[in-house]
Amino acid sequence: MPRLVMKFGGTSVANVERIRNVALHVKREVDAGFEVAVVVSAMSGKTNELVGWCKEAAPLHDQREYDAVVASGEQVTTGLLAIALQAIGIPARSWQGWQVPIETDDAHGSARIARVGGEAIIEGFKARREVAVVAGFQGIHPGSGRLTTLGRGGSDTSAVALAAGLNADRCDIYTDVDGVYTTDPRIVPKAKRLDRVAFEEMLEMASMGAKVLQVRSVELAMVHNVRTFVRSSFDDPANPKPGTLICGEEEIVETEVVTGIAYSKDEAQITLRNVPDKPGVAAAVFSPLADANISVDMIVQNISPDGKSTDITFTVPSADYARAMDVLAKEKTTIGYPAIEGATDIAKISAIGVGMRSHAGVAAKAFRALADRGINIRAITTSEIKFSVLIDQAYTELAVRTLHSLYGLDAA
Amino acid sequence: MPRLVMKFGGTSVANVERIRNVALHVKREVDAGFEVAVVVSAMSGKTNELVGWCKEAAPLHDQREYDAVVASGEQVTTGLLAIALQAIGIPARSWQGWQVPIETDDAHGSARIARVGGEAIIEGFKARREVAVVAGFQGIHPGSGRLTTLGRGGSDTSAVALAAGLNADRCDIYTDVDGVYTTDPRIVPKAKRLDRVAFEEMLEMASMGAKVLQVRSVELAMVHNVRTFVRSSFDDPANPKPGTLICGEEEIVETEVVTGIAYSKDEAQITLRNVPDKPGVAAAVFSPLADANISVDMIVQNISPDGKSTDITFTVPSADYARAMDVLAKEKTTIGYPAIEGATDIAKISAIGVGMRSHAGVAAKAFRALADRGINIRAITTSEIKFSVLIDQAYTELAVRTLHSLYGLDAA
Repeated sequence: MPRLVMKFGGTSVANVERIRNVALHVKREVDAGFEVAVVVSAMSGKTNELVGWCKEAAPLHDQREYDAVVASGEQVTTGLLAIALQAIGIPARSWQGWQVPIETDDAHGSARIARVGGEAIIEGFKARREVAVVAGFQGIHPGSGRLTTLGRGGSDTSAVALAAGLNADRCDIYTDVDGVYTTDPRIVPKAKRLDRVAFEEMLEMASMGAKVLQVRSVELAMVHNVRTFVRSSFDDPANPKPGTLICGEEEIVETEVVTGIAYSKDEAQITLRNVPDKPGVAAAVFSPLADANISVDMIVQNISPDGKSTDITFTVPSADYARAMDVLAKEKTTIGYPAIEGATDIAKISAIGVGMRSHAGVAAKAFRALADRGINIRAITTSEIKFSVLIDQAYTELAVRTLHSLYGLDAA
Repeated sequence: MPRLVMKFGGTSVANVERIRNVALHVKREVDAGFEVAVVVSAMSGKTNELVGWCKEAAPLHDQREYDAVVASGEQVTTGLLAIALQAIGIPARSWQGWQVPIETDDAHGSARIARVGGEAIIEGFKARREVAVVAGFQGIHPGSGRLTTLGRGGSDTSAVALAAGLNADRCDIYTDVDGVYTTDPRIVPKAKRLDRVAFEEMLEMASMGAKVLQVRSVELAMVHNVRTFVRSSFDDPANPKPGTLICGEEEIVETEVVTGIAYSKDEAQITLRNVPDKPGVAAAVFSPLADANISVDMIVQNISPDGKSTDITFTVPSADYARAMDVLAKEKTTIGYPAIEGATDIAKISAIGVGMRSHAGVAAKAFRALADRGINIRAITTSEIKFSVLIDQAYTELAVRTLHSLYGLDAA
């Protein structure tokens, strides 16, 4: 019998009425002959309420207790959905993370899944044709027996891990959008829904700010080759749209050169001027930032004309900008830079596509098109399937639209 | 080291500020040298919210799923209190029912505790001087591994069972009143707080409508001889009042004849007139009621003057009155009664005291005093340590005040 994992996020289970609607989506798949496990998030708003209480109890709180508090949100949804399924004649039972068990490490608050023991759930499929309603976002650390949570957005990861653990044929992630688009439709109304996206492309899109799927869930789907659909829970349960399939490259027959355009406004740029161009200088700059747990993204270092000094430009999350400037100020004499510059009003625009591998000059085309629109490029980085440019934030929308048209992504 | 179980109900943990106040109560006992386990309820209002969602999802819902949903309320409080304790320097961790474990039978929604495994909690006391914050009201059925709940008010029972399981020296139940009173102070302003009440007396008071402690928790305290204090969580944590000790009779040195006056307005009276006075008639009346799960309280059967027929009077909970009348209507020919009468505007007044055992004429005194006030007695039942009279509901307050004065319970 084919096996399916379905995942519904907070807005899809925001109240009992919507939970009943989710039950109809599940019924459709059960009627179609699938063995179904459903992963659910907390009702929307609940997690924020619980997190708020933890902060109110103590700003610096024990992450283990935070996990115990916050994991309760998903628990509620599992029971309610099981009740709603039973009410329409579908055998169902709730499974908390510790009951499955979904075993994690002990990094409370952002634990990583180590093992999914799906035997009891499969026994329920076989013996009772029972839908398993599984709490997303949570697990148990087997050593301590304590509840863990996977961090924000972790329910996507729960779903993909469960799909891998249950050896499911498919994992459907239901969200409030009906798939993955070539870019943000709020910026480009002509953005198209993609039928298929390669895991690698989706990874770049997820980490670039296309917030449809959590990055770790895509990584996990890629590693375990879980065919994952992104689709809408607001579709008519009787007649839903297929959504976008995230899958291996080999499943994508006609490859576009560029699949999508992503952007991020959450980064800040830092430039160190005239840094002595000698061995060890990069380490002197980036080690203190790493020690302060600040992740650095784009790094550009120019060869100096005189061979004596160089400019180093890089980006950090805007939230860490002030802290990064502090760290670097303390290291000023060690690094030996005479001047530092920073900017937060910047944006990163990225073009992504596995087809870039076999096409030359893809990025060069973009640089010219942006120049033609008078958009100044502050920095460039490239990878096998992606290139990114750093520009002034005011030009974000113009740049996204320009590249979207340039690579033929506009809908007819 | 002395060991203490403290229990705080929903109003005592209604918000984070009150939870912080609870932490101060706990700190006081830790500072005094106690090993402490704290049992907490859900934040007040939360359980009702969760129950409401279950009913909305399906009026007739799977009690196992109801338990999964509702048990989440206590989980939240345990984590928040552990955080609040740590914030004031007290090592603490949360324990869900399944982690302790508090093992129950599988009567989901109203499970009974079968075993409390407190070894890990005691290990925490010894190794880390760690306060255990335990979720009340919930447990686990070891056979199925599923969450169970004990039914409304079950947190009192959790606390007493944990005190027994941990072999604690004392169990303090914190409520919104500062102890057990000789009667309802809203009716008799001169009601006195009792220093000590015997288990048996408290059982009668609890089941009679003095809603301070859940009946099952008192039974459990009596069986395991757990010295239990009822005290107020709204006292100054630095200087609390002692409350009322519920304990074995042998600890009560000066026994009053009557310890307290209880009343209940939640009963209805049914009288069957001229029932044939022959063997088996009582069974014919009460078996169908038992089959319908209606609990019958006071039963009075008079010997008939002619030896041929008799009147049977009894009470049922008012909520079951209509159903009881239906059941009896169906059995009319089988029982063979010509007339049935019912009344819901009645009240039951009870006087309770272990001292009654050694004093004669205690009840007779009351009958006279009530008659002097013009209060008609509809029925009487007596036991070793209690007598109850059924009267018109309009006279409830007058009757309570009359008996309270009669037995010398009024405060000076």
